[in-house]
Amino acid sequence: MKNIAVRLMYDGTDYHGWQYQENGITVQQTVEEALSDLTGESIRVTGCSRTDSGVHALDFVMNFHTNSSIPADKFAYALNCRLKDGIAATKSWEERDDFNARFSAKGKSYVYKIWNVKIRNPFYDKYSWHFPYDLDIDKMKKATEYFVGTYDFSAFMAAGGSQKTTVRTVRECDLCENNGMIEITVTADAFLYNMVRIIVGTLTDVGLSKIEPEDITSIINSCDRKQSGVTAPPQGLFLKKVYY
Amino acid sequence: MKNIAVRLMYDGTDYHGWQYQENGITVQQTVEEALSDLTGESIRVTGCSRTDSGVHALDFVMNFHTNSSIPADKFAYALNCRLKDGIAATKSWEERDDFNARFSAKGKSYVYKIWNVKIRNPFYDKYSWHFPYDLDIDKMKKATEYFVGTYDFSAFMAAGGSQKTTVRTVRECDLCENNGMIEITVTADAFLYNMVRIIVGTLTDVGLSKIEPEDITSIINSCDRKQSGVTAPPQGLFLKKVYY
Repeated sequence: MKNIAVRLMYDGTDYHGWQYQENGITVQQTVEEALSDLTGESIRVTGCSRTDSGVHALDFVMNFHTNSSIPADKFAYALNCRLKDGIAATKSWEERDDFNARFSAKGKSYVYKIWNVKIRNPFYDKYSWHFPYDLDIDKMKKATEYFVGTYDFSAFMAAGGSQKTTVRTVRECDLCENNGMIEITVTADAFLYNMVRIIVGTLTDVGLSKIEPEDITSIINSCDRKQSGVTAPPQGLFLKKVYY
Repeated sequence: MKNIAVRLMYDGTDYHGWQYQENGITVQQTVEEALSDLTGESIRVTGCSRTDSGVHALDFVMNFHTNSSIPADKFAYALNCRLKDGIAATKSWEERDDFNARFSAKGKSYVYKIWNVKIRNPFYDKYSWHFPYDLDIDKMKKATEYFVGTYDFSAFMAAGGSQKTTVRTVRECDLCENNGMIEITVTADAFLYNMVRIIVGTLTDVGLSKIEPEDITSIINSCDRKQSGVTAPPQGLFLKKVYY
């Protein structure tokens, strides 16, 4: 059996997240149906991340095992012919047998977009968080620095995670702003459930001067979800890159 | 009664075009319901253009008459609070009594986007025509020049129009390409039904070298819809600007 890896890009708007579920069409289900149709086998894929409903992916990696004679590098093209609007396979290749898109990952980057202009832009509604209030960008930039390092991030975790440890290493937390569009990039070895969206919600509290950049350290140290900010909505979040 | 004009921006993906119809939610209906709710009056709006299902607007103008005491410049904000994702009012002001968003227009610009890269980009699916075949951009640029001028454009009109004359003056027809995204801008005094989409379909025939740039003149002169190219799909089309 060959172990095939595929890079995907998807617009999460019309999907109930990545992972297979009973009550809605997911990206995983859509891709599995296309692959099963293509190979004649019953294919199960492993995704690098379980993105939530409405969350997007710019560079998602998945893998699956198959006996198909289709050359590894042709799967992306063959898959695209069977995928509908909203999902595209950009590359495929053969991996060593023990490669697992989820457990082999050494790190991931997410980017979160905030449209910080008074008036909504209908073309950004599904791809950003519309935040019409004035934000102090310099303070927010300063606050991002306090997230970098190895900490127990349980104050930035939604209930429902099942991980052994809540310690994570954030390698990068950057913020840039361009004509009202704020982009916050977070890179870590792994993420807790809703971690990026809670970091973003907390950064908007800094931007509103409800809290100061220096307060981030004590919020992290509290290990108390009630100390951090709101969970930013899903449609602003993009999985940007997976590192192996 | 005051005559209020409003600038709108809308993502046409989830709407059955601008104009009120029985079997689907339209932008006009959505805006009229929001305005009626806001003023307590039964408001009827006049739009500058009847965009088709899936077509977008970057700068659409509409007007309506009202006895409401809401200041003219506050309508945009008040309307936005009542509009859902996909439509935004960007400006409102009072117009002279005889201003009509449709009949007062002296010209319009549309832009059509073609994603000319082998692999689909899920984020462009709803906002461009994915055209995966090689196109000769220089030939297409040359061909755009032949559309500029005053001609009978009936070869570039879908059946169903009810206009008195099929003569139109195209003031500008430009094409630019950037990293695989082709943008074709057409400005005219007025447009025939599907005129921009048929111009774009015909330009792709030039790009594929099925026809030559110089052939555009004889296609125009034929006044025969069968001589021009396919009607490009709606989701690549954006109303860009209305001139009064």
